[in-house]
Amino acid sequence: MNSQISKVSYPDLSQFIARSFVACGMSKPDAEKAANLMAKADLMGQDGHGVFRLPQYVKRIAAGGLNVSPAFSTIEDRAATALIDGDNGLGHLVMRHATELAMKKAKTTGVAWVGARYSNHAGPASLYAMMPLEHDMIGIYVAVGSANHLPPWGGTEMLLSTNPIAVAIPSGTHPPIILDMATTVAAYGKVKTAAQRGEEMPVGWMIDRDGKPLTDPKRASEGFLLPIGGPKGYGLALIFGILAGTLNGAAFGRDVVDFNADSETVTNTGHFIIALDIKAFTDPDSFKAGIDEIWEQMKSSPLLPGASEIRLPGERLAQVMKQRTEEGIPIPDQLRSVLNNLAVDLEVAPL
Amino acid sequence: MNSQISKVSYPDLSQFIARSFVACGMSKPDAEKAANLMAKADLMGQDGHGVFRLPQYVKRIAAGGLNVSPAFSTIEDRAATALIDGDNGLGHLVMRHATELAMKKAKTTGVAWVGARYSNHAGPASLYAMMPLEHDMIGIYVAVGSANHLPPWGGTEMLLSTNPIAVAIPSGTHPPIILDMATTVAAYGKVKTAAQRGEEMPVGWMIDRDGKPLTDPKRASEGFLLPIGGPKGYGLALIFGILAGTLNGAAFGRDVVDFNADSETVTNTGHFIIALDIKAFTDPDSFKAGIDEIWEQMKSSPLLPGASEIRLPGERLAQVMKQRTEEGIPIPDQLRSVLNNLAVDLEVAPL
Repeated sequence: MNSQISKVSYPDLSQFIARSFVACGMSKPDAEKAANLMAKADLMGQDGHGVFRLPQYVKRIAAGGLNVSPAFSTIEDRAATALIDGDNGLGHLVMRHATELAMKKAKTTGVAWVGARYSNHAGPASLYAMMPLEHDMIGIYVAVGSANHLPPWGGTEMLLSTNPIAVAIPSGTHPPIILDMATTVAAYGKVKTAAQRGEEMPVGWMIDRDGKPLTDPKRASEGFLLPIGGPKGYGLALIFGILAGTLNGAAFGRDVVDFNADSETVTNTGHFIIALDIKAFTDPDSFKAGIDEIWEQMKSSPLLPGASEIRLPGERLAQVMKQRTEEGIPIPDQLRSVLNNLAVDLEVAPL
Repeated sequence: MNSQISKVSYPDLSQFIARSFVACGMSKPDAEKAANLMAKADLMGQDGHGVFRLPQYVKRIAAGGLNVSPAFSTIEDRAATALIDGDNGLGHLVMRHATELAMKKAKTTGVAWVGARYSNHAGPASLYAMMPLEHDMIGIYVAVGSANHLPPWGGTEMLLSTNPIAVAIPSGTHPPIILDMATTVAAYGKVKTAAQRGEEMPVGWMIDRDGKPLTDPKRASEGFLLPIGGPKGYGLALIFGILAGTLNGAAFGRDVVDFNADSETVTNTGHFIIALDIKAFTDPDSFKAGIDEIWEQMKSSPLLPGASEIRLPGERLAQVMKQRTEEGIPIPDQLRSVLNNLAVDLEVAPL
């Protein structure tokens, strides 16, 4: 065993998260739902979005900035749309609820778009986009990020977040196609992970206020993230922020609370989920066979000089998920130490 | 007047296009609908997607590759979704029909997603995304591009197109926010325009098969476009191609017909439009006021050293549209000559 990293099973990790939330006052069913989603993020290889975030969530609960017993309400409701008020609950619980509602509506109407406000950070975008897969539906999820790290193109005021999108599409014999991407070259979670691990960032992730490359993740507060494709990524971040934030009456632009720096203020995080029923367009089995064929076409392309393979979005996720299900989820010693200090504070059994 | 460029009014341009289509056998109402959309593309500043494409469309009609009297049919129909078969009609007519259907459905259901197959090239993506604006709706349009110019990330086989997305969001006092972007650094239409104008392309638009920069647009067939954000842009092109193509039973991947090289084969082009009713989420006036506020926030950011201004997506479009409405649409002499040769062939009055 590596002295820097040890492994934990998905059930053990999930139960640790669940008992931590219960110790914070969350009901057991809600704690288990949230814990399963957070541990699933780690199982999927989203190291910056799983248990890594637990100390921050617990700190926010302790500071009164997150409601452990939210009462969700439906503010607006049409046949194929809804707007949910998350009552400042954990984002995982709000978006699990929103996604279930979207799938229920889409079963009849063909597509549904459910937005949420007064939610919070919900972990990786793909968690929610993947939920419709088992119902032969396509999932599309977009969120306003929980801290602004991106200025408008040409500017220096960080008015935008990484505002990610995830799209999940079922396949037949291959893994589902799952795109989960920030509209910035790197997600801020990756910067945090690099800082935690003491690693340098590649040139192109961030620049400083003079426009020069910034590669030390510990200096992240001195600069900002770069959008993909320059003005195009800025445009996507802006549009996604409007659709997930402004349209839902959730925070966007200067209203976004930096949840890394401030654990007390209600974040009013916005997200939306689209569930699209494949059966409203075609037979799901022939659709999935078509996705398999597309998968194989991409894989069969000759390679550029220097390239070692062609990957499909979701391919690495499936590989990591299989490996971690079998071998356990790697937890760096430093993170385990942070989590077990938290366990002492919460008076729960350690990880 | 510049000796290289002369100006034409929107009505004159639209009427020229309409009479050209009528001469090709299209009904007058259809020809006028298509011509208005094509001339609007020029009015919007989308020079690679308006009248510039007319000779190509006419060539396709003459070759039997485009149906001038299509009978659209609704293959699948749910409360909030539909799948339209465009009967190999001009894309502009198919997507105008699809967008009207989506708006009608969304008025009741809140959101609607209408896909199309057996369509053709439809001009700039924003044409359709903008249609819902006047009904206080948001429009989202995605298409499978009409020729493959993009390999999967790391590969050299051009299995993907630029697969563009456009999103249009109404504002109050400012122009609507309109993002219209290819998933590649440059759209192929821009490469064609550069070739037409005899201009060099910037480094970063295309590479050749050895991975080296390609800047001569006349050598475009020797290389391929680069996706935004590397693997992220590839992922977006793939996902958009599946949603606009595979899901609709339209061409995607190796099935895509290069409409620049082949005027005879049915392209089976796929697109989709989403109409999202703002009233299903909030009061449209307060929403628009919120968009104005976001607009002003972005504009007020301090500038990076070297930057001259911050732009919102759609800002330049609104400026160009205003200017061209007042002063006319600039037509390079070379293009006018091509169009007037076409007029001779079609025995219609010249532009």
